[in-house]
Amino acid sequence: MTIVPSELDLPERSRRPRCSGLTMVIDNGIPLRAFTDAIDSAAEYIDSVKFGWGTALVTPTLDEKIAHLREHGISFYFGGTLFEKFVVQGAFDSYLALCRDHGCEVVEVSNGTIPLPNREKARYIERAAATFTVLSEVGYKDQERCLQLSGADWIRCIREDLEAGATRVITEARESGKSGICRPDGTLRFDLIERILASGIDPNDLVFEAPTKELQSYFVKRVGPGANLANVAPGDVVGCETLRLGLRSDTLLHFELERHATELAAGA
Amino acid sequence: MTIVPSELDLPERSRRPRCSGLTMVIDNGIPLRAFTDAIDSAAEYIDSVKFGWGTALVTPTLDEKIAHLREHGISFYFGGTLFEKFVVQGAFDSYLALCRDHGCEVVEVSNGTIPLPNREKARYIERAAATFTVLSEVGYKDQERCLQLSGADWIRCIREDLEAGATRVITEARESGKSGICRPDGTLRFDLIERILASGIDPNDLVFEAPTKELQSYFVKRVGPGANLANVAPGDVVGCETLRLGLRSDTLLHFELERHATELAAGA
Amino acid sequence: MTIVPSELDLPERSRRPRCSGLTMVIDNGIPLRAFTDAIDSAAEYIDSVKFGWGTALVTPTLDEKIAHLREHGISFYFGGTLFEKFVVQGAFDSYLALCRDHGCEVVEVSNGTIPLPNREKARYIERAAATFTVLSEVGYKDQERCLQLSGADWIRCIREDLEAGATRVITEARESGKSGICRPDGTLRFDLIERILASGIDPNDLVFEAPTKELQSYFVKRVGPGANLANVAPGDVVGCETLRLGLRSDTLLHFELERHATELAAGA
Repeated sequence: MTIVPSELDLPERSRRPRCSGLTMVIDNGIPLRAFTDAIDSAAEYIDSVKFGWGTALVTPTLDEKIAHLREHGISFYFGGTLFEKFVVQGAFDSYLALCRDHGCEVVEVSNGTIPLPNREKARYIERAAATFTVLSEVGYKDQERCLQLSGADWIRCIREDLEAGATRVITEARESGKSGICRPDGTLRFDLIERILASGIDPNDLVFEAPTKELQSYFVKRVGPGANLANVAPGDVVGCETLRLGLRSDTLLHFELERHATELAAGA
Repeated sequence: MTIVPSELDLPERSRRPRCSGLTMVIDNGIPLRAFTDAIDSAAEYIDSVKFGWGTALVTPTLDEKIAHLREHGISFYFGGTLFEKFVVQGAFDSYLALCRDHGCEVVEVSNGTIPLPNREKARYIERAAATFTVLSEVGYKDQERCLQLSGADWIRCIREDLEAGATRVITEARESGKSGICRPDGTLRFDLIERILASGIDPNDLVFEAPTKELQSYFVKRVGPGANLANVAPGDVVGCETLRLGLRSDTLLHFELERHATELAAGA
Repeated sequence: MTIVPSELDLPERSRRPRCSGLTMVIDNGIPLRAFTDAIDSAAEYIDSVKFGWGTALVTPTLDEKIAHLREHGISFYFGGTLFEKFVVQGAFDSYLALCRDHGCEVVEVSNGTIPLPNREKARYIERAAATFTVLSEVGYKDQERCLQLSGADWIRCIREDLEAGATRVITEARESGKSGICRPDGTLRFDLIERILASGIDPNDLVFEAPTKELQSYFVKRVGPGANLANVAPGDVVGCETLRLGLRSDTLLHFELERHATELAAGA
């Protein structure tokens, strides 16, 4: 499959099923054949697919999409907002039943939209974790509200979620890359990222929502080619892979400088 | 088709053919199979398709696209800019012949680009309405020019168009959502919308161009799930439907608060 | 194929193979069937396809894409960043071998990312030109660095590349339209364009990267319907064609005024 000439020195990439370097795709409700085409054309790079927010409920071709993912052995789940919709209507058990009926192995638990203290969210994580692999999410979709969440708050919430049974914790950035760990103008809250990474939390326990090239580049450079990235658009999977390997301008020099430093160290 | 569990309380949505809550898609010249895929995957939510501006004249696969829409019983028309191109070259009759030859039932009449006073536009509406269903459009594509159109001007033009025989009047926002009822920075001219809605014009006589999630959310919250929306991208139809139903963060709390208020009122 | 009624007066467009008015598409790693669909639906308007930056190395379906282009007689090449990746690792000969193995007739030579003086770049152009048609690129992807390149610098680099054997010189704008001949905010550096066009360089020796409607409109109005445009997205080819013909608002009045002036001159 790989066509990389042996002369070229690129970072190592693990194969599916991967333990790190996950590329998690978001389906925002694209047409069926566009979906199967995206999967068929880059399956080896795709670790999971999220049916974004509540699209699952109004996607006429949901069953066909799920069947296609099963054929490729790609896991899938529904967006956290759908969990929140059921919770706010007092129908959490119905939500778990819905996930079970559709064969989801993964459930996302979040409080990005509804007022739900993290402590209560953690209890939902516990309950869901009895049956499902749970991904939790930290961060609010509302920009103002999210800017009030301090670094210490983020770290506390992430720890609480992991202790409650979440397999990994996702840091919110939305599909637009304009809230959560991002500022309203789309730039990253670098200080926040540094606080979280300095806290001792294993970066591999984290998944960074990174819907834009700018966010993907940043995390690949900061965390490495093995950064876990989510909300990657179906058509951007190959592009994301080039960023991980230093094959696009945005990360090329970064990896070349690392390579140079390694060579210097080896020769010294 | 619907997979919404009975436990979940969502706004009612009518079925095609609808009288309100129209989702009108714009085709900006996408490839043929992308087009048929988008239609096949969400036909129940699509009320019409516009072949944007003059794309119809240079789309090699136009006939196949039209045939596909006929199979699904979805009406279609050419962008208002094409009408204006013919008018500015003194070839209005040729334009009607072109529409007739392609089996259009709908014709859009606008003055977004060429200098054409609304009174004269209204005469074209009258002439087209003798044979076709006419959608008219109010608002200029040029941002500076459009900012000079007062609320009273908009209301007068809308009324004039309806009296001349337009079935509905579209408020301009372009494909980008950056002119017409929007400011150059993409934000809505809220005051203008309020003026129009306060004028007594039936919101169902209006269609709001809403190419972005932000615009769609605004109109769904302001006018209701039954707002008529146009310039929806082919791949955004399912996403637009989730906004109408409160299944995405942007409208979720709005509908939950409405639901809560209704329950309180019922219990009081 | 054309459905333009004889009543409508539009600019002339040449047919493939064209010598000017080139539309050069960028594939940023889209899925296979999306790719073949885009080609099939608008082949007559597409003059070449670039597999953007290093996507060629990680595109599992590259062979199928290339085979499809051959069927349509459309030339293709790899992005300049891939050339730079090989050069920075001292593997230029491997790069030419890679291009040969994939049947490329065209090679792009650039220094948009790595530190490579134009004089040295010109030597790579000479070496590649012995076997391939060479497109060179002027301009850096880094915005700060590129703002320091004066108009005189641009003109000197363009001339140097042409003398070294480049068939045409591409002016950098990236896929985003935010560096090279563009400012970081996406607006064009108009003065720079004017300097280049005033220098006596044949506009037909230039290709303008124009990934956005705004850039495409500008070059069509400034250079004419025969402007060579690159980095056009696969789904925007039909839209680009409407801009060339004055069938979209952004260029409609421009061409109508030209037509009017021509008629006046003819009648005088």
